[in-house]
Amino acid sequence: MNGADVLCDVLLANDVTVCFANPGTSEMHFVAALDRKPEMRCVLGLFEGVVTGAADGYARMTERPAATLLHTGPGLANGLANMHNARRALSPMINIVGDHASYHLALDAPLTSDIESLAAPMSNWVGRVDGPADVGPAAKAAFRAAMTPPGIATLILPADAAWGEVGAVPPGKVKLAPPPAVDMNAVRKVAAAIRAAPGRAGMIVRGRAARADALEIAGQLSTACDVRLFSEVLIARMQRGRGRVAPTRIPYPVDAATALLRDIDVLVLVGAREPVAFFAYPGKPGRLVREGCQVLTLAGHGDDLQAALEALRDELGIKPSQQTVVATAFPDEATPSGKLTEDAIALSVARKLPADAIICDEAITSARRFFALSAFAAPHDYMMGTGGSIGGGIPMATGAAIACPGRKVINLEADGSGMYTVQGLWTQARENLDVVTIVFSNRTYAILHGEMRNVGVSAIGENARRMLDLDHPALDWVLLAKGMGVEAARAETCKRFDVLLDSALSRRGPFLIEAVL
Amino acid sequence: MNGADVLCDVLLANDVTVCFANPGTSEMHFVAALDRKPEMRCVLGLFEGVVTGAADGYARMTERPAATLLHTGPGLANGLANMHNARRALSPMINIVGDHASYHLALDAPLTSDIESLAAPMSNWVGRVDGPADVGPAAKAAFRAAMTPPGIATLILPADAAWGEVGAVPPGKVKLAPPPAVDMNAVRKVAAAIRAAPGRAGMIVRGRAARADALEIAGQLSTACDVRLFSEVLIARMQRGRGRVAPTRIPYPVDAATALLRDIDVLVLVGAREPVAFFAYPGKPGRLVREGCQVLTLAGHGDDLQAALEALRDELGIKPSQQTVVATAFPDEATPSGKLTEDAIALSVARKLPADAIICDEAITSARRFFALSAFAAPHDYMMGTGGSIGGGIPMATGAAIACPGRKVINLEADGSGMYTVQGLWTQARENLDVVTIVFSNRTYAILHGEMRNVGVSAIGENARRMLDLDHPALDWVLLAKGMGVEAARAETCKRFDVLLDSALSRRGPFLIEAVL
Repeated sequence: MNGADVLCDVLLANDVTVCFANPGTSEMHFVAALDRKPEMRCVLGLFEGVVTGAADGYARMTERPAATLLHTGPGLANGLANMHNARRALSPMINIVGDHASYHLALDAPLTSDIESLAAPMSNWVGRVDGPADVGPAAKAAFRAAMTPPGIATLILPADAAWGEVGAVPPGKVKLAPPPAVDMNAVRKVAAAIRAAPGRAGMIVRGRAARADALEIAGQLSTACDVRLFSEVLIARMQRGRGRVAPTRIPYPVDAATALLRDIDVLVLVGAREPVAFFAYPGKPGRLVREGCQVLTLAGHGDDLQAALEALRDELGIKPSQQTVVATAFPDEATPSGKLTEDAIALSVARKLPADAIICDEAITSARRFFALSAFAAPHDYMMGTGGSIGGGIPMATGAAIACPGRKVINLEADGSGMYTVQGLWTQARENLDVVTIVFSNRTYAILHGEMRNVGVSAIGENARRMLDLDHPALDWVLLAKGMGVEAARAETCKRFDVLLDSALSRRGPFLIEAVL
Repeated sequence: MNGADVLCDVLLANDVTVCFANPGTSEMHFVAALDRKPEMRCVLGLFEGVVTGAADGYARMTERPAATLLHTGPGLANGLANMHNARRALSPMINIVGDHASYHLALDAPLTSDIESLAAPMSNWVGRVDGPADVGPAAKAAFRAAMTPPGIATLILPADAAWGEVGAVPPGKVKLAPPPAVDMNAVRKVAAAIRAAPGRAGMIVRGRAARADALEIAGQLSTACDVRLFSEVLIARMQRGRGRVAPTRIPYPVDAATALLRDIDVLVLVGAREPVAFFAYPGKPGRLVREGCQVLTLAGHGDDLQAALEALRDELGIKPSQQTVVATAFPDEATPSGKLTEDAIALSVARKLPADAIICDEAITSARRFFALSAFAAPHDYMMGTGGSIGGGIPMATGAAIACPGRKVINLEADGSGMYTVQGLWTQARENLDVVTIVFSNRTYAILHGEMRNVGVSAIGENARRMLDLDHPALDWVLLAKGMGVEAARAETCKRFDVLLDSALSRRGPFLIEAVL
């Protein structure tokens, strides 16, 4: 067997069974090794941002890494933006980046580049395989790094390490340490602070603290002790919908965020970080809590967040039978009609959402109302891009659908954002994934128009307009989707949108609705 | 005025008048400043690989930098693959990467990343603006770096440097040093070596040595002294066609390349580097010249290559009236009919090529015959991806068309490669660029099938097939193009292809032909 075979064996021994791939010549021995392992599911992306974004979506839903297969520095570079999102989502991921044979690097052949320098900013661990005998240890180290938060592991595989012969190697199941025990000092400190600030304590939950079971405990704390529950502005994954506790999302605009947090004297972080402004603006603060707010960490991402919440509940003397406040039925609201609007789409999707659906939200400005409404929708998982990299939606939906074949994935996608990684639609068609993509076709970077106003420009001229608007020509998303083998149709009215959504939800396989706004 | 205004002024003062852009929030003040400068042409790309690839195409045709506008680390990351090609093409380019306000970086907001680490591998110069007063000096340094080969300059612009007020600054025209005088020692050494190796000397020309005038001199040397003329395997830009001297391109396959160079005892580099294998293969050499071959540099990329060739001609006692061997009329060959083939396309395009056209060749395996045939075509410029990054073709054609509005651009594009930066078609439609894209739709990564055979795999299985083939579903390039506003049609026969090509060449504006193979 060669080094590439060893790499496959280590991955499979550790239940890494999906490889999102866009290979090149330096990875041909690895491709040949994968070809000998039909138990590895290889999923081709026609662009590397699809590959890494799909691995992110897969990881968020499974809490397990997929492998990615990328071709040298430029292939890695194309995948970095969605690796950035994955890193900010704290997703586990094992990127395998093929490189020239080690002895070939000194010749500085055209594809040569400094892969370590490229990988470092978006990786938590970077390693280079040092010859065929090192493939096994390096692959195990990469797996361990991926499973140890934060978990973006990038393994550089020189071609001669892949093709070099090695003796039979025992497949290496990596033994992972359990999460550390709950830090009772932190629990007692947080409990005391909450008690000392009645009505003025808040809690931000994220990661496993944003799963239904943990949210239930957070909701009990909230109800019993008047603790306000928040989520970060960009949500890696949260379980939401009827019967579930729904934290308030900290708003994106700085003024709204600081207003929301103005009365909070104690802010408890559960798997979360202290909230900061997404961007700096002249004269506005970067930290969003008020001056003097006490920010306490109950537990961090790698800890057992649910156990920490349970310990806090006990410490605060709250019974496990404590009731919570949850959304039940939709607020009474007439079904909109006439020309399609963003809010009409939000209401329609929230009402029609099938149970156990997965929502990927990259609609940026267009689906703002959906988040509030979805608290009343059927129980579902909700995910967003987390690092501000645009182009995460279509790939993330792709990976989530591969992770959860029995569940409907609905991707709320802005037209500007969707174009960055539009190639992911082809992978959805190739794999016949059960993804409904709803494109909010407003033909502009609407968020940037808002940001231009934020910097004091009220009337924009030709140069700015040509950089902020996507019109002339308008994108035809129905043709784009069909061009990649995805069925698609266009809606310009509320009625037509509802008909298309009903149809898309009643069938399996990818479908795209261009919602013209 | 603010820092962003100063940046615009410095760019315009140095005749940088095109900005390929994909802006985000941290660049809004720069966008507002550009909006006050209608003399700057701002060209939106819907993905950053389009932006940097277009800047490369623009630079190759004008020998001048365009500016690119990219949004923080992830936006830069998306542009790196085509920056890599540009770096290998030795193209001048000024990348302006917006970043958070400097005081915001410590908060590690979601979009924060190590931009310097990302930029360094694909840049020859990286600078970060240190406050509003530094914008002028930093912008001038970036321009100087871009104009000093090799010329990829990346300037990181923190938002607070862009929005900070500065006093009126005199627009800074940068004074550039002329290229150094011809190195007569090198000339004499090369002349002596050529004289000492009759019939066994070769010369590789690239950059300005591959323009028609310089090629004419190289051709005189070749004829008079029996020096074999070569080009590198990947050609940044070469002037070719009837009446022009046509160097032999060093082949991509290692065995063919070493065979071609086997009889060369003296290899003279004119703006070129010693040829090496694109990839390493077990048991094959990395250097392509034979053991003991004397490799001499006549002049490097930053030198006056034409003057160096003239000096060498004089040193060798060749008269300026020396005749050269050039292609004249096409070899006699029947017009193919029936089902369309790669070679039929090559012949048709070569025969119908309008005078002064620009060819962008990213057809990888599919247009191999075109290069040989194009020596007989009408005079034209020929460009390829130079760094092995896939996805250069559509953007490069876009930038070349903006650089040369009066010339027809023909982009020979592989279907696999085209998908990486397919968004560039929209920019061609938006700007109504005179580009004919011919997609060689073979529905496979044909080069990788070849590479699998190179690593000894003759029959491939399901996993490999699913990573190397683009079928199931087939891409419909006509729909993709129309979805982005580009007129398109499909050809499956030679006759239909000829009709479509005639039509595309007789009109102005973008057109795409899907050539089904």
